[in-house]
Amino acid sequence: MRGNHNDQIAKSSEANTRKKMSVGIWHCLIIFLSLFYPTTGLKSQGSIVEDMAIKHVLIPIVMEAEATPFVKHLGLKPVAAFFPSNTPFLAFSGEHHNTKVTVITLGKDKVYGTGVDNVGTVSASLATYLALSKLEGDVDLVMNAGTCGGFKRKGAGIGDVFLTTGVANHDRRIPIPGFDTYGTGKLATVDSSKMASKLGYKTGVCTTGNSLDWVEKDDDLMKENDASVKDMEAAAIAWTCAMSEIPYLGVKVVTDIVDGGIATQEEFMANLASAAESLQKALPLVLDYVCDETREEL
Amino acid sequence: MRGNHNDQIAKSSEANTRKKMSVGIWHCLIIFLSLFYPTTGLKSQGSIVEDMAIKHVLIPIVMEAEATPFVKHLGLKPVAAFFPSNTPFLAFSGEHHNTKVTVITLGKDKVYGTGVDNVGTVSASLATYLALSKLEGDVDLVMNAGTCGGFKRKGAGIGDVFLTTGVANHDRRIPIPGFDTYGTGKLATVDSSKMASKLGYKTGVCTTGNSLDWVEKDDDLMKENDASVKDMEAAAIAWTCAMSEIPYLGVKVVTDIVDGGIATQEEFMANLASAAESLQKALPLVLDYVCDETREEL
Repeated sequence: MRGNHNDQIAKSSEANTRKKMSVGIWHCLIIFLSLFYPTTGLKSQGSIVEDMAIKHVLIPIVMEAEATPFVKHLGLKPVAAFFPSNTPFLAFSGEHHNTKVTVITLGKDKVYGTGVDNVGTVSASLATYLALSKLEGDVDLVMNAGTCGGFKRKGAGIGDVFLTTGVANHDRRIPIPGFDTYGTGKLATVDSSKMASKLGYKTGVCTTGNSLDWVEKDDDLMKENDASVKDMEAAAIAWTCAMSEIPYLGVKVVTDIVDGGIATQEEFMANLASAAESLQKALPLVLDYVCDETREEL
Repeated sequence: MRGNHNDQIAKSSEANTRKKMSVGIWHCLIIFLSLFYPTTGLKSQGSIVEDMAIKHVLIPIVMEAEATPFVKHLGLKPVAAFFPSNTPFLAFSGEHHNTKVTVITLGKDKVYGTGVDNVGTVSASLATYLALSKLEGDVDLVMNAGTCGGFKRKGAGIGDVFLTTGVANHDRRIPIPGFDTYGTGKLATVDSSKMASKLGYKTGVCTTGNSLDWVEKDDDLMKENDASVKDMEAAAIAWTCAMSEIPYLGVKVVTDIVDGGIATQEEFMANLASAAESLQKALPLVLDYVCDETREEL
């Protein structure tokens, strides 16, 4: 559902109005119940994709290899001087079905002289914050797209597309009351369960850490986070979005099985190109759904 | 050594000139040798405290409890609207011996509703970047002050003050060529060995991770980083400084012994207040040294 759509509202049928009322009552009931039964432990962003007016989507994609097929597919153009010149970050923008789309990538490392992509939470949070500031409140949804590890124990397979229900950290252990909750940093993300069902995608929590691999303690915490997928940026980007009160949604394609017995880095490198292609197929479909002004009539 | 000090230069004695030439020759020799013997593996910032013209010091101090005694001691005043209103960060400013001093703290958590200090790399990097942007190139040195864990095996004891020689990460394991170096993220910091010797402080590498505690793999990597102290922000702040080409120096007071057999959190909580007092004593001395226009004559 979008903001300025008076014509469509005027045309809506009585049945549609009843449907909306019914949805409204359900939402109220869910909110009421969640006050008394906070079973998930996730702080809610309270946004449901179908209820959002989306005029501009900011899409952080960490790696160039992940972003390029999608940027080309949408015909997005590089934006000069979008980011301050002392940062390595890049921006591409354009339109898709009358919705503005800005893709940002984290650029290549110069600080350590490696030339690799600036992966991880620190650069991801900074780039997202700067992009949101640059776009001055014009962003309705941050859609963080990229590859991830998937958990076999949660039904993930290579190539699967996951839409996040929440994010959390598994490498910020601070065993002091209050700090422990801060460290884990659980946040609910946009509710995209209807969209996932419609597009045949899976949903689940994305757990974030700055390592590509994992140690036993990480795995304990990834289990505690009830994670379906694992990445290196989602929780930091979602933190940045929460601070700016912008809804966050993760769209993650599985490159490797975390609990599958093969070293992450081998599987990741073998599947990165095909996952980028899979992401390029999935992202336009998600974007189509998010931008669809007529969705309520479907 | 500072920038605008022609009067002092005019007064310098022949002996002082010879001393400078001698220091210059030694610096050249060290630079020449370091080209052929890069034994430390740290990317150099190439700054020596005694050679720097320091008119403005930015001092990121993560926790309020760490910052308050120092802010009061220097009589710094809160700066309204220094940071964007959607961030939790705080700034205090004033002067010390004609040098501008800006202290920033990471504020209290609202995103997760815990109210604890926003510790860790993500918030530290963002706050430092925003502060450097706000001060528009006016900062000559970032002096990151705070508490840390110390390694007995490197001679650290509770209450010791360490000046950093370098920083690195121990929780960013990315076992892919190039990414591994990026993940570790070693950076040399300002050379403050003379100052440390003069003030009776210790020097060493600060290793950074987002956990207060550590697991076996962390310890392996902390050893590889040749760390004397361990914190939760230094490497991220130094990365931000390197991006902006601003020299970084860590001033860290030991609250707990990492390899001492007592749980970090217990020792940390027991010693936080006394370490903050120790920091409050050390920081003005470091600042006095850094700001001292007459140091070359000493």
